[in-house]
Amino acid sequence: MKLKVKTLDISTGATLVVIINKADAEKMDIHPLDRLAVCKKKDCVEIVLADIASNSHSIPPGTIGCMDEVVQSLGLLNGSFVTIHPTSKPLSLDYIKKKLDGERLKKKEIDQIVSDIVHNKLNDIELTYFVSACYSNNMTAEETTYLTKAMSNQGDTLRMNRYPIMDKHCVGGVAGNRTTMIVVPIVAAAGLTIPKTSSRSITSPAGTADTMEALTNVCIPLKDMRRIVSKINGCIVWGGALNLAPADDKIIRVEKPLGIDAKSQLLASIMAKKLSVSSTHLLIDIPVGRGAKVENMRYAKRLQSDFHTLSSKLGIKSKVLITDGSQPIGNGIGPLLEARDVLWILQNDYRAPLDLRDKSITLAGAMLEMGGKAKIGHGARMAHRILESGMAYQKFIQIIEEQGGREIDPDELLLAEKVYEVMSKKKGVIRHIDNRNISKIARIAGAPQDNKAGIYLHRHVGDKVKKGEVLFTIYAHNRNKLQFAIDAWERLGGFVVN
Amino acid sequence: MKLKVKTLDISTGATLVVIINKADAEKMDIHPLDRLAVCKKKDCVEIVLADIASNSHSIPPGTIGCMDEVVQSLGLLNGSFVTIHPTSKPLSLDYIKKKLDGERLKKKEIDQIVSDIVHNKLNDIELTYFVSACYSNNMTAEETTYLTKAMSNQGDTLRMNRYPIMDKHCVGGVAGNRTTMIVVPIVAAAGLTIPKTSSRSITSPAGTADTMEALTNVCIPLKDMRRIVSKINGCIVWGGALNLAPADDKIIRVEKPLGIDAKSQLLASIMAKKLSVSSTHLLIDIPVGRGAKVENMRYAKRLQSDFHTLSSKLGIKSKVLITDGSQPIGNGIGPLLEARDVLWILQNDYRAPLDLRDKSITLAGAMLEMGGKAKIGHGARMAHRILESGMAYQKFIQIIEEQGGREIDPDELLLAEKVYEVMSKKKGVIRHIDNRNISKIARIAGAPQDNKAGIYLHRHVGDKVKKGEVLFTIYAHNRNKLQFAIDAWERLGGFVVN
Repeated sequence: MKLKVKTLDISTGATLVVIINKADAEKMDIHPLDRLAVCKKKDCVEIVLADIASNSHSIPPGTIGCMDEVVQSLGLLNGSFVTIHPTSKPLSLDYIKKKLDGERLKKKEIDQIVSDIVHNKLNDIELTYFVSACYSNNMTAEETTYLTKAMSNQGDTLRMNRYPIMDKHCVGGVAGNRTTMIVVPIVAAAGLTIPKTSSRSITSPAGTADTMEALTNVCIPLKDMRRIVSKINGCIVWGGALNLAPADDKIIRVEKPLGIDAKSQLLASIMAKKLSVSSTHLLIDIPVGRGAKVENMRYAKRLQSDFHTLSSKLGIKSKVLITDGSQPIGNGIGPLLEARDVLWILQNDYRAPLDLRDKSITLAGAMLEMGGKAKIGHGARMAHRILESGMAYQKFIQIIEEQGGREIDPDELLLAEKVYEVMSKKKGVIRHIDNRNISKIARIAGAPQDNKAGIYLHRHVGDKVKKGEVLFTIYAHNRNKLQFAIDAWERLGGFVVN
Repeated sequence: MKLKVKTLDISTGATLVVIINKADAEKMDIHPLDRLAVCKKKDCVEIVLADIASNSHSIPPGTIGCMDEVVQSLGLLNGSFVTIHPTSKPLSLDYIKKKLDGERLKKKEIDQIVSDIVHNKLNDIELTYFVSACYSNNMTAEETTYLTKAMSNQGDTLRMNRYPIMDKHCVGGVAGNRTTMIVVPIVAAAGLTIPKTSSRSITSPAGTADTMEALTNVCIPLKDMRRIVSKINGCIVWGGALNLAPADDKIIRVEKPLGIDAKSQLLASIMAKKLSVSSTHLLIDIPVGRGAKVENMRYAKRLQSDFHTLSSKLGIKSKVLITDGSQPIGNGIGPLLEARDVLWILQNDYRAPLDLRDKSITLAGAMLEMGGKAKIGHGARMAHRILESGMAYQKFIQIIEEQGGREIDPDELLLAEKVYEVMSKKKGVIRHIDNRNISKIARIAGAPQDNKAGIYLHRHVGDKVKKGEVLFTIYAHNRNKLQFAIDAWERLGGFVVN
């Protein structure tokens, strides 16, 4: 059937979708969510999903409404003609059904599913069945390995003729906790290779990529990343600007509505990106505690063991540290506030938050031992020396400059102008600071979109406070957002003092 | 935030969706799939899902693109203004997560989920998690009972001051098999009340509603249905025209892509509609056989026992017959072709297909026994008498007329004009006729949209055929469709002769 293209200027976000009129649909026995091949001349064919327009107003018979993704993939012009015909469903649907029925999937089946995800051939419903199937019927270690490799193979890869290639990952959930920006310069300054990719915030007040972006460019193409790392041993770039394991974002999108983390997918998603930068040695940080992403030690231990199993199947040497995630680490929360903490630590400034400094030294020390630069038990001391000597700071400035930025004095980082100081309502000892609530308040204040907004913590758990003493400061871009953040604090709380 | 409405003239099919510009979304920290309240003045609020337009072309900052469903539910005009603000997620998401984690749901939790489904508050992803959760973690008999009641309660109900109220249901999957149109007149002629609602075809060449519609009107409002049944004891109407258990269609929509039938939902979906017409006695037909919906006896037995359990919890007396579903029943396949078979049977015409006649008598007999009109063991004989005496035909004509039609001579039913006779390629005995392939060929020939199209079977399993003898005739509206159907026959096959 020949139809006239109507470009809709609407994006689905991923899936290839066209809309056809009900009359045309009936002629061809096409039903909603059926698959169509859309052909421009003879050489262009894509599998897309049909949507049926019940009213003939916007999509009259003889026309086909095309979402942005279809327009782009075929290079369609408004008013041009395409032919359509029904096609069969993607093979991967049978495999998803199989997993939903509790069976194990083979390598080629997982490859097909991941390929169909990457090429937008599955709709939300179908992708959700896959995520749900993996959540309800846990994947075996073999299946998770296949999934990890498939996710990595479907994207670009950084290849470097070096050994070892170091990497780190934090499972997340702790406010602040910007260790990567301290660990990478220490490890690189010691002569180890560490091509670090980081993520932006999804639901937190800042990701490492957001914080690093407050100081330099983080959208670095793969070939520049390679050049930089070859020259100075390390970098800290935004993984999202690279095409590493592209299935991941699509999977995360359907996990979000219910907030589910299918463990096999969590593992595969993390490890696929490590495979994609050819990491050989990986340090994983699992913060555990009330308010963190992992709240109990039993789950942390299981995750630790799963990481070990998967890493070894992938040929990556790994070490997993279970750390204290019961409160925010560092004082600043929000891109600029966190960047300032990092600079103070690297400059050995008296205002450096010691908790973040100590944790970074521990992590860097472990990596120096893994990479063979320090004997077992001597890594932390070596990391400490590299930090105190200023070598880590020098390396950090090299990274900043190679990525296109310049050295910045932390005292020149201007924070958002509207400020509110939250004071303790009573005298006592701080017993708990809630990661989730503090993150929420910082986000409502504007972080990370307003990169100067966020929270600065003046006190941590265990500190004694008097009535009226400042617990933390909120920074916001305008009065409105500041008030929203104050309201959120009053509604949610986040400090337990008694 | 105040935004100018742009009506998009596009329907999502169900979910309430608006599209806002990326710049506006960032200002409010709104992410794709977040929930918004859209308010027209002060009194109108709906929970809708946000989609983010990445290009400012169609939805510039300050505007809000509204899908048909939102336009209708708020009565919006293009160019008018609405205010939006973020709202929390529906409560039911927590309950869906709970079921996904393998826990049991309480009555009020299931009520909430069904209510949110009916009011379009869940998106495809969320609804899929629910279906998937029920598929992977089977519901208990209690949960299924709650689900059934919730589905029924969310729709309209037919109340009649009568006892008993008879009903029948067939699990389906067998081509032809139009027993309802024979059973209902027999049962009603015997003085029992049977307010029968039927469905249209989804993936078959005809549903009972499609076939009945070849003879009379089937879109009957609830109050007319009540009047008709009060007067003549029975009716055969399209359930889809009534608002019975409206959650059902929405659930079926997300089951379709993977072809999954979550058993608890299948049961609840069937029984909810029976509750909605106040049925007290229900006969269920489970056809079993190669090519039918239920292919093995083990599953049929389990389904039988589940139907008994659920019926008794709902206070409905039920009887479940497991019947032979290994080949099409009756000769006609397609609305008019099946209607003609039905009329021939009711008129005791020599061309009546005996297999369909016998099965209808068996089912009607069982219902006469259940309803107390015949002693156990004597129902079929009584049904046979009612049929042969012409009383069933008289009752059927009453039904046709009360629903707005008139008596039609089956020989006046004009079939589609393009005809092709499929001949046996060899001599032998017919060993198998495949329901799925025959249905597929009839659909490609045009059924049920072209109600005169379909297939007429001249032979059934067990018949001896010579080479060149006609196995079946294909009827299509035009040459194109006929050729497509012939091609499908040659590709798929469907008769095994040897």
